[in-house]
Amino acid sequence: MKKLYAEFLGMLTLVMAIVGSGIMAQNLSHDVAVQLLMNGISTVLALGIAIKLFAKSSGAHFNPVVTLVALVNNRIRSSRALQFIAAQIAGACAGAILANLMFDFGAVNLSTKTRSGIGLLLGEVIATAGLIFVIEYLVSKEKTEIAPIIVPAWIGSAYFFTSSTSFANPAVTISRTLSDTFAGIAPSSVLGFFVAQVIGALVGLAAYRVYDSK
Amino acid sequence: MKKLYAEFLGMLTLVMAIVGSGIMAQNLSHDVAVQLLMNGISTVLALGIAIKLFAKSSGAHFNPVVTLVALVNNRIRSSRALQFIAAQIAGACAGAILANLMFDFGAVNLSTKTRSGIGLLLGEVIATAGLIFVIEYLVSKEKTEIAPIIVPAWIGSAYFFTSSTSFANPAVTISRTLSDTFAGIAPSSVLGFFVAQVIGALVGLAAYRVYDSK
Amino acid sequence: MKKLYAEFLGMLTLVMAIVGSGIMAQNLSHDVAVQLLMNGISTVLALGIAIKLFAKSSGAHFNPVVTLVALVNNRIRSSRALQFIAAQIAGACAGAILANLMFDFGAVNLSTKTRSGIGLLLGEVIATAGLIFVIEYLVSKEKTEIAPIIVPAWIGSAYFFTSSTSFANPAVTISRTLSDTFAGIAPSSVLGFFVAQVIGALVGLAAYRVYDSK
Amino acid sequence: MKKLYAEFLGMLTLVMAIVGSGIMAQNLSHDVAVQLLMNGISTVLALGIAIKLFAKSSGAHFNPVVTLVALVNNRIRSSRALQFIAAQIAGACAGAILANLMFDFGAVNLSTKTRSGIGLLLGEVIATAGLIFVIEYLVSKEKTEIAPIIVPAWIGSAYFFTSSTSFANPAVTISRTLSDTFAGIAPSSVLGFFVAQVIGALVGLAAYRVYDSK
Repeated sequence: MKKLYAEFLGMLTLVMAIVGSGIMAQNLSHDVAVQLLMNGISTVLALGIAIKLFAKSSGAHFNPVVTLVALVNNRIRSSRALQFIAAQIAGACAGAILANLMFDFGAVNLSTKTRSGIGLLLGEVIATAGLIFVIEYLVSKEKTEIAPIIVPAWIGSAYFFTSSTSFANPAVTISRTLSDTFAGIAPSSVLGFFVAQVIGALVGLAAYRVYDSK
Repeated sequence: MKKLYAEFLGMLTLVMAIVGSGIMAQNLSHDVAVQLLMNGISTVLALGIAIKLFAKSSGAHFNPVVTLVALVNNRIRSSRALQFIAAQIAGACAGAILANLMFDFGAVNLSTKTRSGIGLLLGEVIATAGLIFVIEYLVSKEKTEIAPIIVPAWIGSAYFFTSSTSFANPAVTISRTLSDTFAGIAPSSVLGFFVAQVIGALVGLAAYRVYDSK
Repeated sequence: MKKLYAEFLGMLTLVMAIVGSGIMAQNLSHDVAVQLLMNGISTVLALGIAIKLFAKSSGAHFNPVVTLVALVNNRIRSSRALQFIAAQIAGACAGAILANLMFDFGAVNLSTKTRSGIGLLLGEVIATAGLIFVIEYLVSKEKTEIAPIIVPAWIGSAYFFTSSTSFANPAVTISRTLSDTFAGIAPSSVLGFFVAQVIGALVGLAAYRVYDSK
Repeated sequence: MKKLYAEFLGMLTLVMAIVGSGIMAQNLSHDVAVQLLMNGISTVLALGIAIKLFAKSSGAHFNPVVTLVALVNNRIRSSRALQFIAAQIAGACAGAILANLMFDFGAVNLSTKTRSGIGLLLGEVIATAGLIFVIEYLVSKEKTEIAPIIVPAWIGSAYFFTSSTSFANPAVTISRTLSDTFAGIAPSSVLGFFVAQVIGALVGLAAYRVYDSK
């Protein structure tokens, strides 16, 4: 149970930061780059804290794709993986709802922001591939103690250089449909993101295995 | 006495940074997100330095809520707790006054900025709950050596994602009534913040105990 | 082969971040300083990750000038140095192409942005000299474990204070001709940058030797 | 000689970053807060690198006030202190000249920017007092290994919260008269800054001694 609670709380914190700082940013500025900078900085810090606090407990997956890769690598059992993913989605949605409430929006207001197109989905493939490559490296080299720095660093960098602004996480993607604000994504765009994230995970996994086998 | 001096100086530094960088930001930009970024960065750095320098001496509470939680957990005696809180409030007010003087405002000019509403107070609950959760984690796991990084990281993240911009501190709240500038808060809004901060502390304490007991 | 793959992947990541975040920034803001801040932050984080992940494998040169300095100092054989430089150029170009594709530009669209002038080339000399000085220090004092922090810190600082925005890298320079966007450089400006970078490397090397010999 | 060369190179780097990034910022943005953010980030990174590289050699004073405090505390001989200060001023001026040349200004173009007033000089007192307090703490507690983080953190925080933008350094102040750009200071304003910096140093020294004696 402690592990599931850790996954829940970590995701809640992460998505609350993503959605909340997006609303704050759109309220305060007309410059979208400034908005994305504020959004990215808040997200990176929240992610780093969540990993640091919960890594010892659950491994700080905070991402169904990460849990699935752990499953593929036999680092987690399938029943436990399902529980993790459920806790992640629940935590992510709770985070989006809290962010909405903090800024006086309805608890759930579905996003109307379409995010699609080949280039944008390629961005999502790359964001996820890099994330999985980094995590595989940390796990296989037993360097997970630097995960609270290097994983947020990847997300922070990719936030600004990928055309999708780096969701790279199916649970985060689902939860971001619940807020029709800066960080939102229309439900109709979710499936494309899922496909791109899974492809990205496979690309990242393959790239690391090629690298590690040489 | 050394501990009280540490609490005084740390708070003075923190509030001087909060109020001073707020004035600087409002003087230099019309973009409120840019103002909040400058304000947040300056605050996070000042808080990190204050914790690093004074943690060995007083424990670097710098926050009546943190002192009260220490009292609840029998980590501090009640007479000492009262002294700490007095030193914190004195330091915070001194910091606000110095910031006012640096920017050629009157030493004390009461803020007229109303900060209220359900959403905003929920933001303050969340900001304080997260702060107390992080501190309880660090103390109970004996990881206080990372406090100079992780506590400012939380405040920095919450600065941008909470609707209240994360006061999370009754002494800071009091002192920010003394400056009618960017970081100010009208005296009439203070009571609501106090209530939200105490509720937040209880939420954070409860959330950590549930987590730790599992 | 592993070393060449490391050089390729590191460069791909670095240039994808440079070019991609430049496009993102120009899409989102009209303030060129905000654009450069976003571009610089993304680049610094990507560079730090690349060095951290690949330093144990290839030494994380990611720069023909760094490889040439290693050759001059007999830390690498000439045949290997040529392979490194080929892998660096290939990775850099792949990164620029991926960035173009992510943002729905043609895979290759030659830059028309002229970057020239005495002052600007002096900036490039200084950026490269500082980079080589830092690297020589880290290698000769056996402090390369801090390279993932201090090398990106130099690039980040020089991004904002050198008139050339600190290319400091012939492979990066070549690849940036492939994108007619924020980070692009016209092919006609490349030769001047190469000359400045080689002069900068010699200045950096000389400055460090004078320093170290005293 | 190595120590003097270290002081010279460190100062050159620091002032080149201060003046150069100031020019870059004023060229690229109309938002003065954005300009100061770019200027501050570049400065903080350059200062961190300079301290990290040269602390083992000269102690990385990079500031006549720091050298004078070392003299007062009998950590340096007076003849050596004079040499340090000369090297610092020479390095600082060389850095300002290089910054001017990089951006196609004349090597020396005296600043016309008046910086004066009680509030602003109080800002300078506070900036210098905090710097000296931090340094005294690090030296007396034998924690100078964290100086490359905590000293730039102070300067970065104070850059944004002090009304003077935290010169806190007589050699830097002198050199900034040489550039009639963002970071410049009119020669007629220099004396006031010197007085404020010396008073600040005494305040910082006194505050630390009171703290340490308790």
